[in-house]
Amino acid sequence: MLIVMKSSANEEQISVVKNTIEKYGFTSHIVRGDIHTVICGVGGKIVDTRELELLDGVEKVVRIMSPYKLVSRVGHEEDTVIDVKGVKIGGKKISIMAGPCSVESFEQMDETASKLAACGVKILRGGAFKPRTSPYAFQGLKEEGLKIMKKVADKYNMLVVSEVMEISQIETMMDYVDIFQVGARNMQNFNLLSELGLISKPVVLKRGFSSTIQEWLMAAEYIMAGGNHDVILCERGIRTFETATRNTLDISAVPTVKKLSHLPIIVDPSHSSGLRDQVAPLSKASIAAGADGLIIEVHNNPEKALCDGAQSLYPKQFKELYGQLKTIAKAVDRQL
Amino acid sequence: MLIVMKSSANEEQISVVKNTIEKYGFTSHIVRGDIHTVICGVGGKIVDTRELELLDGVEKVVRIMSPYKLVSRVGHEEDTVIDVKGVKIGGKKISIMAGPCSVESFEQMDETASKLAACGVKILRGGAFKPRTSPYAFQGLKEEGLKIMKKVADKYNMLVVSEVMEISQIETMMDYVDIFQVGARNMQNFNLLSELGLISKPVVLKRGFSSTIQEWLMAAEYIMAGGNHDVILCERGIRTFETATRNTLDISAVPTVKKLSHLPIIVDPSHSSGLRDQVAPLSKASIAAGADGLIIEVHNNPEKALCDGAQSLYPKQFKELYGQLKTIAKAVDRQL
Amino acid sequence: MLIVMKSSANEEQISVVKNTIEKYGFTSHIVRGDIHTVICGVGGKIVDTRELELLDGVEKVVRIMSPYKLVSRVGHEEDTVIDVKGVKIGGKKISIMAGPCSVESFEQMDETASKLAACGVKILRGGAFKPRTSPYAFQGLKEEGLKIMKKVADKYNMLVVSEVMEISQIETMMDYVDIFQVGARNMQNFNLLSELGLISKPVVLKRGFSSTIQEWLMAAEYIMAGGNHDVILCERGIRTFETATRNTLDISAVPTVKKLSHLPIIVDPSHSSGLRDQVAPLSKASIAAGADGLIIEVHNNPEKALCDGAQSLYPKQFKELYGQLKTIAKAVDRQL
Amino acid sequence: MLIVMKSSANEEQISVVKNTIEKYGFTSHIVRGDIHTVICGVGGKIVDTRELELLDGVEKVVRIMSPYKLVSRVGHEEDTVIDVKGVKIGGKKISIMAGPCSVESFEQMDETASKLAACGVKILRGGAFKPRTSPYAFQGLKEEGLKIMKKVADKYNMLVVSEVMEISQIETMMDYVDIFQVGARNMQNFNLLSELGLISKPVVLKRGFSSTIQEWLMAAEYIMAGGNHDVILCERGIRTFETATRNTLDISAVPTVKKLSHLPIIVDPSHSSGLRDQVAPLSKASIAAGADGLIIEVHNNPEKALCDGAQSLYPKQFKELYGQLKTIAKAVDRQL
Repeated sequence: MLIVMKSSANEEQISVVKNTIEKYGFTSHIVRGDIHTVICGVGGKIVDTRELELLDGVEKVVRIMSPYKLVSRVGHEEDTVIDVKGVKIGGKKISIMAGPCSVESFEQMDETASKLAACGVKILRGGAFKPRTSPYAFQGLKEEGLKIMKKVADKYNMLVVSEVMEISQIETMMDYVDIFQVGARNMQNFNLLSELGLISKPVVLKRGFSSTIQEWLMAAEYIMAGGNHDVILCERGIRTFETATRNTLDISAVPTVKKLSHLPIIVDPSHSSGLRDQVAPLSKASIAAGADGLIIEVHNNPEKALCDGAQSLYPKQFKELYGQLKTIAKAVDRQL
Repeated sequence: MLIVMKSSANEEQISVVKNTIEKYGFTSHIVRGDIHTVICGVGGKIVDTRELELLDGVEKVVRIMSPYKLVSRVGHEEDTVIDVKGVKIGGKKISIMAGPCSVESFEQMDETASKLAACGVKILRGGAFKPRTSPYAFQGLKEEGLKIMKKVADKYNMLVVSEVMEISQIETMMDYVDIFQVGARNMQNFNLLSELGLISKPVVLKRGFSSTIQEWLMAAEYIMAGGNHDVILCERGIRTFETATRNTLDISAVPTVKKLSHLPIIVDPSHSSGLRDQVAPLSKASIAAGADGLIIEVHNNPEKALCDGAQSLYPKQFKELYGQLKTIAKAVDRQL
Repeated sequence: MLIVMKSSANEEQISVVKNTIEKYGFTSHIVRGDIHTVICGVGGKIVDTRELELLDGVEKVVRIMSPYKLVSRVGHEEDTVIDVKGVKIGGKKISIMAGPCSVESFEQMDETASKLAACGVKILRGGAFKPRTSPYAFQGLKEEGLKIMKKVADKYNMLVVSEVMEISQIETMMDYVDIFQVGARNMQNFNLLSELGLISKPVVLKRGFSSTIQEWLMAAEYIMAGGNHDVILCERGIRTFETATRNTLDISAVPTVKKLSHLPIIVDPSHSSGLRDQVAPLSKASIAAGADGLIIEVHNNPEKALCDGAQSLYPKQFKELYGQLKTIAKAVDRQL
Repeated sequence: MLIVMKSSANEEQISVVKNTIEKYGFTSHIVRGDIHTVICGVGGKIVDTRELELLDGVEKVVRIMSPYKLVSRVGHEEDTVIDVKGVKIGGKKISIMAGPCSVESFEQMDETASKLAACGVKILRGGAFKPRTSPYAFQGLKEEGLKIMKKVADKYNMLVVSEVMEISQIETMMDYVDIFQVGARNMQNFNLLSELGLISKPVVLKRGFSSTIQEWLMAAEYIMAGGNHDVILCERGIRTFETATRNTLDISAVPTVKKLSHLPIIVDPSHSSGLRDQVAPLSKASIAAGADGLIIEVHNNPEKALCDGAQSLYPKQFKELYGQLKTIAKAVDRQL
C-alpha cells in the first residue's frame, strides 16, 4: 500500500499515518520527494483504504495487493476445473447449459430437454423462482418447478442449474439442483453469498449488470471465504448508454477474468442482448474470446413462453448454433 | 399500446397481432399507412411488450400507459404526506434524517444523537445490518445495534430509520425501527419488497445505483401493491463513467419523480459523492431542486468510524449546514 | 410517426397537431381510445420529433421510420462491397488494416510494413496528425509522415489508411492516402463529415466512444448525403463504468449494424481495450461475431513507440494472430 | 510517480525502470517490500504513464501529480475572475448568459434580448453555426446570424457569446463575439483548442457529454497553454444509462472543479435535461451548489423555434426564475 501525502503535510501527519498502518501490521518505509512524501506499507492485512484517506495530510492511497485472495490467480496459477457428477466445467472442455427462462410445465421441459440432450447438452437450465420487475407478472412455479426439472433432467441424464433468490430457498433446492445460480440482481446480496459459501454444490455467479469486474470477483470471494471453492463466473452484459441491445456484452471481461482469476468463466448471450438473433453471433464471439462455456435460453415454443420468449432460441436454431460452436471451439484449441 | 408492423408484414400477421391483443382485453384499431400498418390497442391490462415484439411481422411495440399504477401521479394528483408518530414526511416541510453509517456503541450513538437533536433533527439513522463489499470487513452489531438505537432515539425523542437486508430481519426490526430502509443493492430484491408491502411502517426505498427512474418506480409499486402505501423514494447517486466522485448524484431525478409520482422523494448526499466535502453543496442543491428531505451521515468522531467515515460529517459541520439549509428552504418556499 | 396525446388533451390541441404534421407532408389518421387519442402520421419528410413534443397536449411522439436513409438496409438489401484499387472491403473477404499508432520514421514504417506484407496484409495504417489529450505530448510528423507512409506502402504494394483531423488537411492527404479515417472524437464533427462526402475516396468512420449506434449511422448518413457512398464503419469500444479496460468493446454492435445497414463494419481491438494482451481474444471474437475486418496496431518496436505502445502488437504476435484468424474466418464461412 | 513492480520482477527489470525514469528527469528511490518492489520517481516532467507500464516487470504506475498545471488550483489558490468589457465572470457575482439556441431573425433576437435585458441579463447567447445530428436539419444563419446578434446586443448594451465549430470561423467571429463557446462535441478538438489559445477573448469550454472531469481540465489546459488564460468551464450534463432526461446533470462537477481548479464554472441546465420544465429546478440547484453562473436557452416564441424549442424557456418563465435565483444566490452568499 502506498500513501501519498499532500505537499502541505507536516511531520506530525506523516507520523500518524506511519503509526496507523503499522497498527494494521504493515512495515513502513518513508520516501521524501521534493514535493510529496510517500509512505509505503508492506505486509499487513487487507484494510479499507478510505479509512486512511481520512487521515489529515493524506492526498491519496494506492492499494498494491488486490482486495480478494482466494479468487486470485496469484498463488493459484492453474485453472480451476469443477467436476459435477463427472461433468467438467473449466479446462479444455467447453460447457453448454441450456433451457428455458422459466419452468412452465412438464411437457415444456420434456420437449425442450429431449432436443438439447440430442445435441449433446449435459446441463439443463430453468427458473423456478422468478425475479420479475413487475409485481403483476408470472413469478415462477416454485418447488413444483424444481420437481419437474429434476424429473426431466434425470430422464435425459442431465444436470440441473437453477437460480436461488434468497436464503430460505437453499434447503429446498438442495434436493433438486446440481448447480445453484445467483442472478445479476443478487450479486451483492452478501447474506445469500455467505450462505452459499457453506454448501457443497457449485455456484454460477452472474455479474451484476452494473458491477465492475473487481466487485464481481469480491462477490466470488464471499462464497469462497465460506469454504465453497466451486464458483463459476458468468458474464451477462452490463448496463451502458446504448439502447439498441438490452445490455452490452462485455466481451473483454473474458480475457480480463482469465488473467486475474483461476475460476472458470462462462457467458450468457441471451440476457446480454435480450434479442434472439444476437444469441448466435455473441455465442461464437464468446467462445472465440476464450470463455469456458455458455448458458443459453432455449424454449420448445418461444412464442408461448411465459417469460423472455424474445430472447429464447428455437430448438432448431440451437442445434445449428451448436454445430458452429464446435468448429469455433476447435479453432481456439478447445472442445465442445 | 401501439404495434407498428414491418413494411413487409402480411394480412395474416396483422390478424394474429390483432387477435393477440384482443385476448389481453384490448380494443384494436388498425391504421394503414403507405409503408407501415399500425395497430392501436386501447384499454386492456398491462402486458410485457416483448411478448408482442416476438410475433411475426412486428417492427416495434410502444407502450402508452406507464407500467406502474399506484405510484403514478395520474389519478393521485396530491402529494402524499406520510405521518410517522406526528412527524410529517412530504408536503411543505423538509425532513432531515441523520446519524452514522453504522451503530458502533451506545456512547457513539448517544453523543451523535444529542448533537443532532439539538439542531432539531427528528429522525435518527444508523445501520445494524451492514452489507459490506468485503467479507473481511465489519458487518454490523445486528440486534444489539437496534437496541442501542432505539434506546438513544427514545432518550432524545427521535424516530429510528434503519436498513433491512432480508426478510428474516423484518420481524426483529419491527420492535425497534419506525421507518425501514431498503438499500440500493436491494432495490430489486422483489421478495423483500413484497414482504415490506405487508407491514404497517413506512419504507425508504433507495434507488439502485444503476436503476432507471422507471425501474425504481416499479420497485415502489411492488411495495404499494401489497397494501403499504407509505413509500419514501431516496435518490443516492447513480453509477457513471465519472470517477471523481463515488457515484453521480442524479439531481434531475428530483423534478422527474415529482412529475411522475405523488410519493415524497429525499436525497442521500453522503453516498452520492462518498466525500465529506461534497455533502454540503449537494444537500443545498437537492433542497433547491425541490427534494422533500435528506438523509445524511453524521458521526461524532468520523476518523474512528468503522465504516464510511470518509463521507460522514462532523457534528459541527452538520450544524452549520443545517442553518444554511433553512435559508435555502425558505428561498424555495419550504420549511426545515 | 405516432403522436400520443395526453389523456387531458382537448379537441383544439388534437387539431393543432393534425395540422402541423400535415404541413410537413404527412397524411393523418386519428384513433380515439378510452384514455388517449393517437394521431398517426403517414408519408411526410423527416422531422425533429421534439418540435412536436412541444405542442400542447402531446404526451409522446414515436418515430416509425429511421432518421437515416442512405445508410439503411431497407431499400438496399445487399451488402456494400468497396473496391479500393482492387482490394475489396466487405463481402466474403475479411480485411485487415495494420500498422503503428503514429508514423515516426522511415525505418520504423519500413520494418513494420515488411512484416505485415509478409503475412498478407494489404492495408497499412499509421497516423500523421495525432489528437493527443495532453498539449505537451507528441503531435505527429504531419505531411512528412504522410510521405513516409506513401513511400513505404508503394514499396510493399499496400494501400494507406490514415486519420484526418480537420478540413484543411483533406487536400494534402488526397495525394498520399487511399482511405481516410475519421477518429472517434470527430464522429460528430459535422463540417468535416460533409467535406468528406464530397471526395472520391473511402472513409473509415470510427464510432464515438459515447455515441449510440443510431448516432453513428446518422454520422455515416452525413458523408453519404454528400455523394460519397464508400463508408466503412469501425467499432472501437465505448465508454462505460468498467475501468479494467480502457473502453468496453461493444461486440453486439457488429450484428446490430449488419441488421440495420448495408455498410461494411470493422473492429479496432487495440483502442477498445488499450491493452496488448486483449488484442488477440478481441480480434478473434470480432471475426466470430461477423465483422468484415479489423484495424490493428502493430509496431516493430512497441517499447520505443511514441504513442500507444502499450496496445501495439509485436510483429511476431501479429503473425501468430493472423494465422488463428484464418481458422476462425473459415469457421464462420469467410476468408482472410 | 510510483512504479509498482510485479512480485516476479528481477533486478534487471528494476534497473531498466530506474534508468528510464531518470532519463525523464526524475530522481528515483527504491523501496523493497516482501512481495513488491516500488520505485518512487520525484521531480521530472509529465510523462505518459502507459509508456512505463509497458516495461517488463511493471505491475502498475501511479501518477502523483495531476497532468494539468495552469488549470490547477495548486500554485494558483485564488479564484480567477474574468473581466469582459466591465462584466465580471467568477468571484462573488453570478453571471447569467441567456438567449435562443440559434439566431433565426432580427425580430426574434430583438424581442428575446429586450426581455432579457429588462431582467438584468448582460450576456446574450445564440448560435450562428449549428452542429446538427441530421444533415437534413437547419444549419444556422452563419455570418448573417452573427451580424444580427451583434446589432441586437449593442442595442441593449449586452455582450455576445456564440459557438465556434472550427478554426476557419474564428477570424470572422472575432468581429462579432465577446466570448467564444466551444460545444461539448468539440471539447477534444485539440486543433481548435490550440487556436483559441492564441486569441485574446474568453472561451466558454463545455464539458464533453462523456468526458471525465480530468479530461475536461486537460482540454482547458490546451487553451491556457497557448497563452489564453480566460477559460470558463461549463457543465452541461453527461451521458448515462438514464433516459428520462436527455443527459444527466453532474451537479457534483461544480464542487469538484472548484476544488481542483481556480477557473470559473457555470452550468447549462437547458442541455443537461433537454426539457423546459427541468430548467428552473436545475438552475436553482446549480447556484445552491456553488456554480458561478448559468447559460440558459430562452426564446421569444419556443413553439416556432428552429431548434431546441422543447428546452427553451418562455421569457415570462425566465423572468420568474431570475427572481428566485436572486434569493438562492443570497442564501449562499453570492449576488446575481
